[in-house]
Amino acid sequence: MEISKFGGEFKLIDAIVKHVKDPGIIKDYGDDAAVIKTSDPKVHQLISTDMFTDGNHFSTKYFSPLEIGYKVSEATLSDIAAMGGKPKYMFISICLRKNLQIAYLRSLYRGIYNSCSHHKVLILGGDTVRNNKISCALTAVGEVSTENLCLRSSAKVGDIVKVTGELGGSNAGFIILKREYLGHRYIKKKHLQPRCRLDLVDKIAPLANAMIDVSDGIAGDLKHICDQSGVGAEIIKQDIPISKQVIHAARALKMNPHNFAIYGGEDFELLYTVPEENAKKTPGTTIGRIVSGNGVTLVDRKMHTREVLKGGYEHF
Amino acid sequence: MEISKFGGEFKLIDAIVKHVKDPGIIKDYGDDAAVIKTSDPKVHQLISTDMFTDGNHFSTKYFSPLEIGYKVSEATLSDIAAMGGKPKYMFISICLRKNLQIAYLRSLYRGIYNSCSHHKVLILGGDTVRNNKISCALTAVGEVSTENLCLRSSAKVGDIVKVTGELGGSNAGFIILKREYLGHRYIKKKHLQPRCRLDLVDKIAPLANAMIDVSDGIAGDLKHICDQSGVGAEIIKQDIPISKQVIHAARALKMNPHNFAIYGGEDFELLYTVPEENAKKTPGTTIGRIVSGNGVTLVDRKMHTREVLKGGYEHF
Repeated sequence: MEISKFGGEFKLIDAIVKHVKDPGIIKDYGDDAAVIKTSDPKVHQLISTDMFTDGNHFSTKYFSPLEIGYKVSEATLSDIAAMGGKPKYMFISICLRKNLQIAYLRSLYRGIYNSCSHHKVLILGGDTVRNNKISCALTAVGEVSTENLCLRSSAKVGDIVKVTGELGGSNAGFIILKREYLGHRYIKKKHLQPRCRLDLVDKIAPLANAMIDVSDGIAGDLKHICDQSGVGAEIIKQDIPISKQVIHAARALKMNPHNFAIYGGEDFELLYTVPEENAKKTPGTTIGRIVSGNGVTLVDRKMHTREVLKGGYEHF
Repeated sequence: MEISKFGGEFKLIDAIVKHVKDPGIIKDYGDDAAVIKTSDPKVHQLISTDMFTDGNHFSTKYFSPLEIGYKVSEATLSDIAAMGGKPKYMFISICLRKNLQIAYLRSLYRGIYNSCSHHKVLILGGDTVRNNKISCALTAVGEVSTENLCLRSSAKVGDIVKVTGELGGSNAGFIILKREYLGHRYIKKKHLQPRCRLDLVDKIAPLANAMIDVSDGIAGDLKHICDQSGVGAEIIKQDIPISKQVIHAARALKMNPHNFAIYGGEDFELLYTVPEENAKKTPGTTIGRIVSGNGVTLVDRKMHTREVLKGGYEHF
């Protein structure tokens, strides 16, 4: 059987890797990062690894090497943010073409270095090897105080669902870039130079229950929370934060702006659930509520329609 | 300038990444693994990342998927052994073709899993993405008691140079496989199913000064120790341990067996320096001595000739 017919990446991993039962491990794969006990009972270590390939996560056609480096770093660090933690160290493996120019590689590393420096993350190691296409594998190591740990599996019925920033920018930018539209600089930048939300972790993590970063689109990411928490979610379509630039781009593309926000990935905003009494104390926009049942339902308040959302982006 | 004209991978990394100055970091890149202080003053954490691509580190032409998985895991765990440590956790990122069969991927994971299980290493996370060629990026996390830490930079003039096992098997096997020779099963297996020497770490690390694993050939690997320790080394050609199977393969290939042992990589044996008074207490074969000066000199005892060795395998 081919992987694409098997039901996608998550089912694939589930079928092959067995969950670890070890007293030192709080969480193995299946969340944004693995959670490991340390000798300090108040602190857990977080480790996350991500791989990025030309043509899937970036394109050398319209990404500068600086932007590739920047994006792969922010995407990797975002996984640590999504657990309520802070990254400390980064390890970088890069596949390169043999005839690649030093200046190109230097810019790519500079992009990673700029992102890491900004978040006070130290680059501690790596590997460079040859391949016919550029790809990068990054591993981020961080820590989280045990009180702040936010798992995907911790959403409670009655929680408010909130999201930081605005959604759909990265996906709209991707299509604008791919179709070579002129203009739309703001939206292009959302795709080429995304920022993870480590700036908001301290304000959200102490109060939130479950959290994830928006990498597969809120439909898919909220579904991960629902599936792992054994709950459902209702999202109010009109409350999803969409920038006027995404609406403008959608008009130009003759596409529905809500589709960018709901199914578009790689915004790297934080999507989290928070008990109602704490909801006003955390940053971001309220977009819905955790309910009993399962799956994510989109409610159109004006039209009184309901739609059960499918999952997000699947690599296979 | 192209990378291949720049002087290879190590010069490349040196030129781009700045060494980290941080009180929590014992060693950043440049050794087999990064060494990080933990909250327990007697234990350091070790983290190493390696990337492997089809056509460079393995070939899907003659490696079974089980063997690919096994080899990339053993090679990654070998970096933790080379520091005197024990691996605990593994993170795996894999690039796959979209039309790859599930059974193939399952075997590849099974190979990694078998290797990790053997060494009591837990698989805690990973990522699977698409690419046109198979590649894997593995990150091993381990620990070392501060007393057992063996850096490349700790060799002392007068130390005895020792190596575990026998050398050249992997490189001889590689050429035998590439040229599609029949027979030579033992040598082929040395290339397809190498084993890292975690079994010997407890016997070597408490007594050794500097250590490295044989991944680039002893000429290159001993040069890393010499360069980082500010010393030289003299190796006795006749004392290098070479199996009769390597000699047999060399005869069939009309090649010099010593070249496999000196310049051939990926044996994953441990190459270390040990004070003379401890040299008889550690496993392996004595092949030479650390001297003042720099570089690695090969001494032919019978012919009384001396030859300064070049470095090992360069990816670029």
